[in-house]
Amino acid sequence: MFGFELLGTCRQTAGRRGRITTPHGTVDTPIFMPVGTQATVKTLASQDLYEIGTGIILANTYHLNLRPGHEIVDRAGGLHSFMNYNRPILTDSGGFQVFSLAKLRKITEEGVHFSSHIDGSRHFLSPESATSIQEALGADIIMCFDECTPYPATYEYARQAMERTGRWAARCKLSHLREDQALFGIIQGGVFADLRLESLKQIVDLDFPGYAIGGLSVGETKEEMYGVLEILESHLPSSRPRYLMGVGEPEDLLEGVSRGIDMFDCVTPTRLARHGTAYTARGKLTIRNARFADDFGPLDPDCSCRVCRGYSRAYLRHLIKSGEILGLRLLSYHNVHFLVELMMNIREALENGRFVDFRHDFLAKYLLKEVN
Amino acid sequence: MFGFELLGTCRQTAGRRGRITTPHGTVDTPIFMPVGTQATVKTLASQDLYEIGTGIILANTYHLNLRPGHEIVDRAGGLHSFMNYNRPILTDSGGFQVFSLAKLRKITEEGVHFSSHIDGSRHFLSPESATSIQEALGADIIMCFDECTPYPATYEYARQAMERTGRWAARCKLSHLREDQALFGIIQGGVFADLRLESLKQIVDLDFPGYAIGGLSVGETKEEMYGVLEILESHLPSSRPRYLMGVGEPEDLLEGVSRGIDMFDCVTPTRLARHGTAYTARGKLTIRNARFADDFGPLDPDCSCRVCRGYSRAYLRHLIKSGEILGLRLLSYHNVHFLVELMMNIREALENGRFVDFRHDFLAKYLLKEVN
Repeated sequence: MFGFELLGTCRQTAGRRGRITTPHGTVDTPIFMPVGTQATVKTLASQDLYEIGTGIILANTYHLNLRPGHEIVDRAGGLHSFMNYNRPILTDSGGFQVFSLAKLRKITEEGVHFSSHIDGSRHFLSPESATSIQEALGADIIMCFDECTPYPATYEYARQAMERTGRWAARCKLSHLREDQALFGIIQGGVFADLRLESLKQIVDLDFPGYAIGGLSVGETKEEMYGVLEILESHLPSSRPRYLMGVGEPEDLLEGVSRGIDMFDCVTPTRLARHGTAYTARGKLTIRNARFADDFGPLDPDCSCRVCRGYSRAYLRHLIKSGEILGLRLLSYHNVHFLVELMMNIREALENGRFVDFRHDFLAKYLLKEVN
Repeated sequence: MFGFELLGTCRQTAGRRGRITTPHGTVDTPIFMPVGTQATVKTLASQDLYEIGTGIILANTYHLNLRPGHEIVDRAGGLHSFMNYNRPILTDSGGFQVFSLAKLRKITEEGVHFSSHIDGSRHFLSPESATSIQEALGADIIMCFDECTPYPATYEYARQAMERTGRWAARCKLSHLREDQALFGIIQGGVFADLRLESLKQIVDLDFPGYAIGGLSVGETKEEMYGVLEILESHLPSSRPRYLMGVGEPEDLLEGVSRGIDMFDCVTPTRLARHGTAYTARGKLTIRNARFADDFGPLDPDCSCRVCRGYSRAYLRHLIKSGEILGLRLLSYHNVHFLVELMMNIREALENGRFVDFRHDFLAKYLLKEVN
């Protein structure tokens, strides 16, 4: 049911143009996946996502396991049915949240004991339970339960986490039964080149249909992040999709694609929107700024989304300043659209052999911040 | 530019089927107007309103005058352009808010001094300024600046407020210059029959293109409210639309129509949604209720709106319990749709001479609350 086809590569970078096949349709790569933590991309309805043209979205196992509970989602017919989204969905394993968010966690070789952020109740996640919960949630792509190394971390700690991630990956694979789901492996190892390569070997030896690079964008410098991608790039099998977890700023998408990444996810577009910030072709824009009070032009003059076609900066500023939910919703719509369209343009540039020029032109304008 | 046509009347009640013409299109009456206090029907975009089929919406002069300021809306090209809503809009005069919400208000014959609920700054609204602000906002229908009598009120207080409302109505009419806007008069007088009739005579003598009944649904009993409507009904010119301000519960819409009302407005559908309550054909439903956790049916099995077609009670409950904005948005959409559709059904019943049967059948089911 799951497949990946490499359609073409960039001559000047490691950029790849590909296509993923899932039971809920195909996904052209490279792709950005908006995050629907609690089975909703915050403020947006599935209708909006279809309109924007999202190819695949992500949902969080940690959150859905606690609320409403994976049994409820299962009885609803799975996530697609539950949230009324009929395109591909990916779930993470809960590992990242358990390690970075949950209080009072206790790690053992068996798994992780932790307290719910909602009501403090005690829970346990292991490679086996994270996998079976994701089977119940029913996404098209699911992830191995891993230990995400924080930053900074000692070499010794990073090694331990990486080795455990490898052992847990084997257990995830063993316990995964649903043939209509693809289980991706995750490479850890912090910013240490030898640990990353060792992790890659372990995980690739297990033969997953896709490989994720975890533990980045957690505090390290951009150079460190890009460095890890460069180390891994030539060792990853070209026949499998590569997913850079939790990364999604426009410049990172371009740099990630340049280093062979096919899939990205990030909460940034909707989180920025809730803080009144919008992506534009000329950099980020803070809509609360007083100079937008009587700016009747669109949020981003280069954008063709429904928000930019219908609403002015002055109106959006008014909504945000007035605490109106519609403001958060319209900014979220635009921001998600912005990244989805950026990826569409990247794919087109890859197809036309113009990726390096596109990257240059986009970043020159985006980083100049001339109007904002 | 403004007109009203009486298309037919009910044989058994004072119910009327009519049509209002405005520069932004026609409105079939009786009609429910969703409230967009701050130039947005809370959580909904204009696209949603078009989809729902709202004929006319209301915006609040008090709020828009304070934020973003009527000058900004004027420079945006008026409310229609500012909020991207190309159908008829009505603005109230700010009177109700100034009298009921604003702190530190001081009433003089000239007008009302009050403090902004946003920043405490001092403001002044008079018949003349409320009218010119509404001219700047640019709605199709605007309202006279009136003094809304609270409940309970003494006869003497109600008389004073009613008489001032009459004097202010004359000043509003004198100062109103825009010929593309219809200025409606407002009848006050509390729950006192003679004051209501005296107010009606004063206001109707001024000859407005439409008449509103203000100061109801402010704490009086339903019987008192319906009584006032019955007293006024036969004295109101049948050639002008009649607007019952601030009223919008399903049963009140039916009882109002029965007493000759053509227009209604109320914040209830969106306010209820924000509290997790939905209208259904079988009464109100509190979605947080635990029994909906695994109810995978639609919010209202009798409803054909986008929310009821696509989402389950279990999902909506999950969204509301999780504090997700999408939950408020979907419930708001459904609730506004519910009242808009109810009015459509009322109009159809009036056309077919079946209004009394329809009213009976609807209320029998709605008040039974059998599934909720």
